[in-house]
Amino acid sequence: MNLTHIEHLGIAVKSLETAIPYYEKVLGLKCYNIEEVADQKVKTAFFKIGQTKIELLEPTCPESTIAGFIEKRGEGIHHIAFATDDVAACLAEAESKEIRTIDKAPRAGAEGLKIAFLHPKSTMGVLTELCMKGE
Amino acid sequence: MNLTHIEHLGIAVKSLETAIPYYEKVLGLKCYNIEEVADQKVKTAFFKIGQTKIELLEPTCPESTIAGFIEKRGEGIHHIAFATDDVAACLAEAESKEIRTIDKAPRAGAEGLKIAFLHPKSTMGVLTELCMKGE
Repeated sequence: MNLTHIEHLGIAVKSLETAIPYYEKVLGLKCYNIEEVADQKVKTAFFKIGQTKIELLEPTCPESTIAGFIEKRGEGIHHIAFATDDVAACLAEAESKEIRTIDKAPRAGAEGLKIAFLHPKSTMGVLTELCMKGE
Repeated sequence: MNLTHIEHLGIAVKSLETAIPYYEKVLGLKCYNIEEVADQKVKTAFFKIGQTKIELLEPTCPESTIAGFIEKRGEGIHHIAFATDDVAACLAEAESKEIRTIDKAPRAGAEGLKIAFLHPKSTMGVLTELCMKGE
């Protein structure tokens, strides 16, 4: 795969209202965007540090997969997203190497990205996103 | 805090022998160093992607904190490390803002870094390392 950098880290939090002040006032990062991704039942807050974004994910309802993650494991790092210029090619390569994928084709993510996930069963427990800028 | 980028992500794995081929042959990254950190009872493998390193952590004995992490939560992302030019100043600032710290002063980490950890109880579940190049 042709991966260039870590585009973002997804971090599951119970409350953006509690988490944002920690990232801003303690770590000194700046929240530049808050966006609801209805599809994924989350509200997200974005910070940038170097090449990488931190994406805080607050579940908007108990059926959100993020709510399930927090229920099972507590708040914490949920996924890592690598930037590429061709998500479909990465998916094809993963499948050819017998890596289980969650998505069969790129789909729309937050901030206009095209995204797809590899399954943590095939990636030693790391929920792995591949993403590229949308057209 | 003056944090510049994500220096590395620490990922707990049961076996470097199993994990390294995934990072190399599927993700296309190159393992450039393997190092045992006796102090932390881990063997580490390093990869670089953009500004950030991925540090795989294999426990070298059952008493390793990484062994405990895997036992409790399974393999997966263990910590996030931010680069700064002054770990001691970051610790002082964290303490002044009532953030619980694991280390009271910078100590030696892998690759000659000076490091210190913030406690996940104060960081919404994210074990957070601060690090800088050693002298």
